[in-house]
Amino acid sequence: MKLHDLPTPALVVERPALEHNLDTMSRALPGTRLRPHVKAHKCTALARLQAARGHAGFTCATVREMEGMARAGLGDDLLLANEVLDARRLGALDARVTVAVDSPETIAAAAEGGVREVLVDVNVGLPRCGCAPGDAGRIADLARRAGLLVRGVMGYEGHVVGLGDPEARRAGVETSMRSLVEAHAQVGGPVVSAGGTGTWDLHRDATEIQAGSYALMDTAYDVLGLPFRPALFLLSTVISTSPGWAVADAGLKALGMDHGPPSIDGCKVWFCSDEHVTFAGGAGTKPPRVGERIRLRPAHVDPTVAYHERLHLVDGDDVLESWEVDLRGW
Amino acid sequence: MKLHDLPTPALVVERPALEHNLDTMSRALPGTRLRPHVKAHKCTALARLQAARGHAGFTCATVREMEGMARAGLGDDLLLANEVLDARRLGALDARVTVAVDSPETIAAAAEGGVREVLVDVNVGLPRCGCAPGDAGRIADLARRAGLLVRGVMGYEGHVVGLGDPEARRAGVETSMRSLVEAHAQVGGPVVSAGGTGTWDLHRDATEIQAGSYALMDTAYDVLGLPFRPALFLLSTVISTSPGWAVADAGLKALGMDHGPPSIDGCKVWFCSDEHVTFAGGAGTKPPRVGERIRLRPAHVDPTVAYHERLHLVDGDDVLESWEVDLRGW
Repeated sequence: MKLHDLPTPALVVERPALEHNLDTMSRALPGTRLRPHVKAHKCTALARLQAARGHAGFTCATVREMEGMARAGLGDDLLLANEVLDARRLGALDARVTVAVDSPETIAAAAEGGVREVLVDVNVGLPRCGCAPGDAGRIADLARRAGLLVRGVMGYEGHVVGLGDPEARRAGVETSMRSLVEAHAQVGGPVVSAGGTGTWDLHRDATEIQAGSYALMDTAYDVLGLPFRPALFLLSTVISTSPGWAVADAGLKALGMDHGPPSIDGCKVWFCSDEHVTFAGGAGTKPPRVGERIRLRPAHVDPTVAYHERLHLVDGDDVLESWEVDLRGW
Repeated sequence: MKLHDLPTPALVVERPALEHNLDTMSRALPGTRLRPHVKAHKCTALARLQAARGHAGFTCATVREMEGMARAGLGDDLLLANEVLDARRLGALDARVTVAVDSPETIAAAAEGGVREVLVDVNVGLPRCGCAPGDAGRIADLARRAGLLVRGVMGYEGHVVGLGDPEARRAGVETSMRSLVEAHAQVGGPVVSAGGTGTWDLHRDATEIQAGSYALMDTAYDVLGLPFRPALFLLSTVISTSPGWAVADAGLKALGMDHGPPSIDGCKVWFCSDEHVTFAGGAGTKPPRVGERIRLRPAHVDPTVAYHERLHLVDGDDVLESWEVDLRGW
């Protein structure tokens, strides 16, 4: 099958860029040093390529992702890096399951749900989940008293990963990791889990990095100068042209929009509607023709992938495989 | 089943508000005066409630929506109000199929795909699809020469439907409809299809209105003072609290974000992450507790629904039915 045969909109992964990204990360963070985050691609076929590069442990954001990874035989060491109040579906999995806890309630849910291992989730500066660093020892004690094995700590410096200035990023990681190390001293256990694609090479104290976006990459990461390449585009068909603009068949229901609209090489995107993108050709470019295929780069990969049933792996014009995005939903 | 038994995040439809909305619209625009747009809910179970109120014709935005409506037995008169370059799946449907055309290429695609009926899509001011009003007669002639039955014209005044000032909205509809009437004079046929929820009561010349959002409603429409009520909320669980903020388990993958973040009554939403919303309680409200259920109102219903597998119909705390969102994808 050729690229041109795909019905649009179609989400396409370029194999050379994907393999470059996976190989680059696996060389730098081999084996258990990387715990790839599947939320960025929600696809067990892609996770298999990560596992084949030596990473046995994975990070998930939802119970459904945990279930799908276990079902796919990728359940050697699954971390749900998120809090849940009902852990029964996790406890029922045929997999090694670790869940993040940051409160008495989430500890009780883990124990009642039949989960056996936890990480203490520590707030390292992002106003989201995690206990205060100084409270981590108490949370660990509560978890142990509930019969849970405490493997260590996790803390995500999400307020830092997107900082454009490398020095600010490095300093932000250091400050965040001081909090996590302080918490870890109270908690114990072998695991200090942290990081993301934007800070993949800035960690000294973390035992493992939870990067996910590196596989497909966002245009939002373009400014960071990372060694990973954009590997994902949304193939779309021009369905209408008017003097001054053109319209293609990919819109709000095919694109995560929280980081802004997608980009089209050499063109200016005006706006997206539910099933349309309206754009203008750049100066000196040929006006788009009806029927022409164009490539959109999504600003934020994760919520883009979550809209799609399939990822199509291509090399040039050849469609090599079509993978199910099988970890969607909750 | 009770509301509290639903795993979160869960998309919930309140039956009293839904029925009020459906009844209000059907009284004002009975029978063929309304051609409900299914893109807003992507759910044949909900479309059935619209059909039961006397609307035999429906509007769709994608081929998949057309296929799903035909399969559900709701194919008496389906309009794809969008251009396609491959109409073969439409031609294969066991349904009355009409497709929008605005160019020689889309006419050729309709004829080659086995579609028999078309509307000429006219640009009435929104920079999106549609031919220039003065070109509509030529497009209609081309379509007839290709053996297609031209049922009339359509034109969507999407640049007008959200205007907060009622007079500006009314004036915008008049200007747009002058273009559509001009085009219709060249094209002929019984159908003049236009409009949306924001302009549902402002049309004189349109024979049918393509409203969809009225069924569930957006917070974005709040400013328009329409007689339709918000009928949709996203049920979420508070999974973590910190001094000053709380986090619930609904984020970017559960919410269309192009109109901005969701709202929570009495609270201030700080930001959404992939699977989280971080928010602060309002002054004087009790701080949220871990495990508490909260209700988010999405800013834009259409791309929100497209993320979800199911819509749960409730009356108070009772879950009455769980409908599949069966028209997703392309």
